[in-house]
Parts: sequence; structure tokens; C-alpha cells
Amino acid sequence: MLRHTVRRLSPTSCYLNPRVVEAEYAVRGLIPSRADEIKADLAAGRGRYLFDSLVYCNIGNPQSLGQMPLTFHRQVMALVDAPFLLGDAEIVARMPADAVARARGYLAEIGTGTGAYTESFGYRFARAAVAAYINDECRGVGPSVTVDDICLTDGASTGVKVLLQLLVGGASDAVMVPIPQYPLYTAQIALLGGTKVPYYLCEAEGWALQTPDLATAYERCVAESGATPRVLVCINPGNPTGNVLERSVMEDAVRFCHERGVLLLADEVYRENVYDARRQFVSFREVVLGMPAPYCTETMLVSLHSTSKGVIGECGRRGGYFCMTNLPRAMREQVLKLCSINLCANVNGQVMTALMCSPPREGDASYTLYRREYDGIFSGLKERAELLARELATVRGFSCQPVEGAMYAFPQITLPAAYAARNEELNSKEGRRLAVDTRWALELLESSGIVVVPGSGFGQERGTLHFRTTILPPLAQMKRMVRAIREFQEGIYRQYA
Amino acid sequence: MLRHTVRRLSPTSCYLNPRVVEAEYAVRGLIPSRADEIKADLAAGRGRYLFDSLVYCNIGNPQSLGQMPLTFHRQVMALVDAPFLLGDAEIVARMPADAVARARGYLAEIGTGTGAYTESFGYRFARAAVAAYINDECRGVGPSVTVDDICLTDGASTGVKVLLQLLVGGASDAVMVPIPQYPLYTAQIALLGGTKVPYYLCEAEGWALQTPDLATAYERCVAESGATPRVLVCINPGNPTGNVLERSVMEDAVRFCHERGVLLLADEVYRENVYDARRQFVSFREVVLGMPAPYCTETMLVSLHSTSKGVIGECGRRGGYFCMTNLPRAMREQVLKLCSINLCANVNGQVMTALMCSPPREGDASYTLYRREYDGIFSGLKERAELLARELATVRGFSCQPVEGAMYAFPQITLPAAYAARNEELNSKEGRRLAVDTRWALELLESSGIVVVPGSGFGQERGTLHFRTTILPPLAQMKRMVRAIREFQEGIYRQYA
Repeated sequence: MLRHTVRRLSPTSCYLNPRVVEAEYAVRGLIPSRADEIKADLAAGRGRYLFDSLVYCNIGNPQSLGQMPLTFHRQVMALVDAPFLLGDAEIVARMPADAVARARGYLAEIGTGTGAYTESFGYRFARAAVAAYINDECRGVGPSVTVDDICLTDGASTGVKVLLQLLVGGASDAVMVPIPQYPLYTAQIALLGGTKVPYYLCEAEGWALQTPDLATAYERCVAESGATPRVLVCINPGNPTGNVLERSVMEDAVRFCHERGVLLLADEVYRENVYDARRQFVSFREVVLGMPAPYCTETMLVSLHSTSKGVIGECGRRGGYFCMTNLPRAMREQVLKLCSINLCANVNGQVMTALMCSPPREGDASYTLYRREYDGIFSGLKERAELLARELATVRGFSCQPVEGAMYAFPQITLPAAYAARNEELNSKEGRRLAVDTRWALELLESSGIVVVPGSGFGQERGTLHFRTTILPPLAQMKRMVRAIREFQEGIYRQYA
Repeated sequence: MLRHTVRRLSPTSCYLNPRVVEAEYAVRGLIPSRADEIKADLAAGRGRYLFDSLVYCNIGNPQSLGQMPLTFHRQVMALVDAPFLLGDAEIVARMPADAVARARGYLAEIGTGTGAYTESFGYRFARAAVAAYINDECRGVGPSVTVDDICLTDGASTGVKVLLQLLVGGASDAVMVPIPQYPLYTAQIALLGGTKVPYYLCEAEGWALQTPDLATAYERCVAESGATPRVLVCINPGNPTGNVLERSVMEDAVRFCHERGVLLLADEVYRENVYDARRQFVSFREVVLGMPAPYCTETMLVSLHSTSKGVIGECGRRGGYFCMTNLPRAMREQVLKLCSINLCANVNGQVMTALMCSPPREGDASYTLYRREYDGIFSGLKERAELLARELATVRGFSCQPVEGAMYAFPQITLPAAYAARNEELNSKEGRRLAVDTRWALELLESSGIVVVPGSGFGQERGTLHFRTTILPPLAQMKRMVRAIREFQEGIYRQYA
């Protein structure tokens, strides 16, 4: 006889982990979902829209917007995927010698089993390529990275998840995140049931990190929630802000982390995406190692990188790595266990990560083509970054900080008070709680086909409104986007101001 | 002034999420770690061992042990990775027409951005291939699967993680797992802080699932822990047990889940690995849909599959999918959100999943080769499954159930009482708590180079001892393995009986 309560589920009510329900990820949230519906409508000839295609500016996904892959990287990957091609002299003769040699070299390391699980941290040869890349960058400052310090991941997202999981067991563990931030961080904190400690970037200073704010945020967290901050997240160059951190600020952040035993999680996936000639990317590892003891020997740092951004743009490959500096042995053992539960990162992402860290060099057969492709993509990104920030700043009610780096503009928008009031009315009529900037982004989408993400998805100072757009659409689409936003915003002012 | 306590970390003590510390994953745990140390010793000429190579039987990783990939699948993948190869008539002419046509077809769906993020659930064309494969199997029983019911994943492991995360928020949420089980399940439950509810498979009946045990385990969980079981995990064919479920047993399990509103998580990654001619794999979806209402219309089922096992053996590709049957809409929305936070499964795994579900057909240019490769791999697995179970059953103190399916044997071992007593002594001397079967596996490894996983890593009835070995090593290595185990076991009996 059953003594428990039988619990039937209706199609509309069911038990769900409340942490999952709470988590939010605006980059693929309400606005992009509505965009997909409209896209399906357009394809089926349904509905009445004033446009016949969408411009997706919601996600940093360059190849979906026409950016071409780097040829050398794809040649090598294809040969590693299908090693029997190397047995065909005719095919080999039609490939550049360095791509063939590289593929043979990788295959010699992998052996016959190119479809096998790798070690939990990834192929040793790929980790060696990453280590060489990092050591090269640090130019002899501090001790060298070894393969044991590197873990290959399915994109940087997996690295974030592993590191946050390692240190966040519940509400008593806090994570300090910049606001605005890439919403993966707050989503993972919500999923882990951890405490979020925001520190606000200063918009008026080009979204600079002001280090006294770190201590203030830490103190407030301890006093108000009783939770202990375990991790400080720094995104450099910033997403969505585009800010590039200065060395002195980074040193302050390192001191802050060291004094409090906080692990510094450095999200450096946009390390190659610096467009402002007055700025230079410096890695947190280089900063830490360049400081005197005990900072250089004790500050716990994990640096993340990815094949998704930069110039390579291989998002779908899900390649990436994290590099551990000064992590205690007990912590490393748990990192290894977590990675072993995941078995390993996908092998194509691993190969792509190795290639990203060791592209053709001057003198190699593929170098000229590689250089041309790389420079072409980079200068296109730079041009659009400048154009977009410049143009958006001239839209009524907008102010836009320069896009020093990364792949986004994050303009502030002001809207007539009547627009906000109307949003309240619509919300109560529709029975939902859209933020004003979400309403704005939704109406922009529905009237013009432009897909952006509202600032509330990234976090913003109370009382301010923003949106994030990528700099990725080709020039023609970008011009359409700016024009559409301008007209939309003018319309709002005509109607509500 | 700082009011908080400054917390310095020493290299040996640091804060860690206790759930992470608690989680265990024996497949890559102590024994394989020790094996890697020995491997490094052998490579460096360090240490004194009675063998000069290891036989890795700890993990189902066929291509690491010489299994060759399916040629057609790799040809298509390489062409999709490097689409410009299709622009070279000479290369096209050297590839089978169906591989070229398939690659062109996939590329037409993907567009230029083969390195872009896909939709959160994966490429639509790949999901369509999976849906067709599933619908074909169900032969018109019940409604068809659509692309919206399919989510492509980085291996089945990611599917398990998403589904358990969806329903397990803490200790009040329980998951019913078979014992012995694949330790991914208990590791994920530990990481989520959930409650594990074991139900024991009956070794004497060839590791059969005895359905009354489900109700007993459920009742005990509710009475003793107060937690509510949310998920029933069924692994079919069983890992590590090799048992293939019978339809009547599966129907009982479906009724059990339906009555209690429990989601049935069907791990069917070994669906192609059935060697016993008296057994046939039937999917849980087919069983559910073949039952009368309300079972067929209301039982919540998620079925998992992977490119890692079967005959394809593309573990490192991290390809796979889950298929949702009768999931309430609110649950599907949260599944989609969780997948969107992960962005998407890696594209090579997605392509490989599509290929697995739509291999060459009779009449296609590649069919003969595909058939020969497939049959060669399958008959090799079957032969080694039979040989291994037969041989291990004759080792002193061993009993071994037939390996009906999957890729493992899971023999029971009995050991002299003095061996167990010596383990206790060694444990107190070494300051650790090795289970008897872990000690046994460690000593087997150190004396012979054979790497197996102790039964305690999978769970077993109290008082019994087991180990898991894969059936994957080539015949010569397998013979060495059986001989080594036999000698090791004889030695133990000589010394301790």
C-alpha cells in the first residue's frame, strides 16, 4: 500500500528546481525568443512587419553574420578529423605544407584514436601550445606555466562553471561581479544558490573599475548578508562595456584579492579585441607575476580564454582554456575531479584552441594568407566599433562610451517619463513585469527587426537604462540598425515627450 | 578600515564547496590516477615494475584502444569543417559521392557560419535527423517526435546534468539510481546537494531490475529522509552490469513513474551494444507510447543517447542528444533556458550525432564500406564480451554474469578474510580508508599494469565486492588481462586463504 502522496503533474504545473526558475540569461532570453518567432513568421509569410529580415545584434557570434573562418585552422582541423586524407598524395599536394605538417604533428601526439576521450584536462600537446602562448606573453616575468596549469574547456563558459562550482556551495559563499556584467555569471551564481555581490563600473569614466568600490562592496556583503566573498570576477576587456583595464587598477584588484583570500577569476576572452590605440591589453597573469611577493606567489588567479571571440570567432567549436596561477594543491585536485566528471572538452575545440595559440609564423607557407585574413577581420571589427559608438552617441537621448575593446556597445538611453508610465500600464494590462528597457527593446524589435539586449539583462545602476548591441553586423546591416534605432527613438520622443 | 577577517590560504588548506569535495567519480578516480603515475614512470624509466605497459580497462573509450572510426562519418565531418575543400574538383573527385552530397546538404542548412553558435537546442537539420531516427524506431506507435523535442548535447553527460539540475534543488529532492550505477549520477546528485535513493539490481538474476524494489526504495526515501523522489534513472543496457531490460519490466517502471509523478531518465547510450541473441533493446519511448492512456500521454520521459558508445565510439567528439516525451510546457521552457545558458553543444558533436542517426543506406556509394566497418567493430565487441565473461567466471573466487550488452563485465569477487583484515591494517598504517576492492584493484594495477575500477565506485550490496572492466582491449591485451587477473587472484589465495 502506498503511504506517500501521489503527485500528478498537469501540463502547466510541475515541480522545478527553484534555482533554475530564478536564473536569467538575457542574451538568449525574451527578446531573442521573440525574434525567433518573428523570423519564423517572416519565413512562413505570416504576420505584418515593416521589414523583411532581422538584424541579430544580441549575441557575439561573428560567423553567423558572415565573418569567415581562418583557412589554416580549418585545414588542419579537417586533416585531423579525417587522417586518411593524409594518405592521399593528391590531396596532400593541394594543401599548404605547414597545414599538412601541423596535422601530422598533432596526429603523432594523439595516435590513432582521434575520436577518443582525452585526458581530463585535455590533450597534452594542446595544453603545451597554450602554455607556450602564455609564457611568450609574460616574457620571462615569473615562473613558467606548465601543462598541468592548463585545462582545456568547452568554451570559456565551462571554465566559469567549474570555477564557480568549486567555491560556491550555497548562500554563504559570495561572488563579486561587475555591474554591468555578462549574465553567465549571475545565472551560474543563481544555479549554485550563491550570493551575488555587485560592484558598479563607472560609466562616466568609460566604465572604469574603481578599486575602492571593491572594498565597499565586500564590506557591505559581509555586513548585510553574512556571506563570504570567494571569487572576484573581472571581465577584461569588458562585456558588455568594452572597457580595457589599466595596469594600476589591476594591481589594486590583485592586492584586494590577496588580502582577503579571494580567488580572482579573470575573463579575458576579448584579449585580442582591443581597438583603441591608447589602450593595451595586459593579462592578469602578467600583472600578478610582475608584482612583489607575496602578491606574485600567493594571489589565486584563474584566467579564462576561448576560441569564440578574438579574430578566430569559432564560437560553435566550444573551445577554450583556463590557466591556474597560485592555486593550492587541494583546490587543484578538486578542479581535476570536476573536470574528470565531465570526462573532457570536445576534441575539435581542443585542436582549435591549440591552433589559436600557435598560428602560422612568418616564413610559414600559410603565413601570408593567415595575416591577410586576420588583419582583414580585425580592421573590420575596429572600424565598426568606432562607427557604432560614434553614430549611437548622436541618437536623441543616447550617450555612448567609446568601445575600447570586446565586441559590444552599451549606450545609455533616456526616455520620456510618459514612455515609462505607459510601460507600467501595459504591464498591468498584460500581467507581466517588463523593465522599461525590455519594453523598449521589444518594441524596437517589433517595429524594425533589430535584435538587441536590454541593459537590465546585464545589470545597471538603478534609474539608468541601456542596451547592448554587438559590433558584428556587416556595414550595410549596421547602417540599417543605426538608422532604425534613430527613427525609433525619434518616434518615441515625438509621441511621449 | 577592514572589519572582516582576513583569510589567508596556505597551499594545503583552502575553502572548497563541500559538495564538490564529497562528489566521487571512480572511473577517473584513484586507480586511474595511480595508473597515470605508473605510465609516466614507465615512460621515464623510473620505478621497478613487472610489466612494460598498461592495459586501460577503466573507461569505455574504444578509439583509445585501437577501434577505428567510421570512414563516411569522418569524411563528411572534414568537409563540413573545411567547406572550401568542396570547391576543389580534384578533392571532390577523390571522395565518395554520398559523403560529398551529405556535406553539401549539411552546409546548405548551416550557411557560411560553420563555426557559429547554433540554436540553443542545436542545428535544426541535426535534430531532424535524430527525430527521424527515433520515429523510425517507434514504427508509427504514438505521435511523432518533432525537432522541438530534441536537444543536442555535449555527450550524454551534459544531458544528465541539465535534467538533474532541472529537478534537484537540494536535499528535499531525491533521485532514484540503480546500484550498481554509472557514477556520473551519484556525482551529479552530490554536486546538486540532492538525496540519492538506491534501488538494487539483482545480481543472481543477471542484474535484473525487480520492480517491487522501486516502490520499496521510494517508500523508504519518503519515510526516512522526507525527500521527494523527482527522477528515476534507468540505464539500459546497464552500466556497469550489461543487463538488457525486458519490456514487461520497463512497463512496470513506467507505471511506477506515472503514479508518482516521477520523471523517467532513460540512459540508452548502449542501445546498439546488445550481444546476447536472446535479448533485444527496446527504447523507453517505444514502451511508453505503446502503453494505454494515461501512461502514454502523461509519463514524463527523457531519453539520452551519445556518439561515444555504440559502434561509432566517438567519445571525444562529445556528441549526443536527449529526447523529451510528455514534458509539461513549463518544464520545457526551463530546459531551454538551461541550454541557452550553455549557449549550444559543440558543432562537431552535433554533426556526428546527425551522422550517427542517418548513416549510409543500401545503395549509397559508401554503404558497403560502412557495413563492413560497422559489422567488424560490432562482431569484435560481441566476441570479446562473450570471451571475457566466460574467462572471468573461471577465475578463483569470481562469479560473472553474462555481458548481455553495453561494454563492461562486472564480476563479483570473493577474497580470503585475511586479505580484508590486512587491508584494515594497511589503512590504519597509511592513514587512509581504502575499500577492500579498491585495495585489490590498486594491487592488481601495481603488480600487473591492469587498470580496472573497483565495485565500490559504482555501488554494490553491502558485503559484496566487484570490479568493472571494459570489453574494449584488443584480443591480445585482453588475454594478458585475464591471465594477469587469474595469477593475481591465485596469488592472493595462496597467501591469505
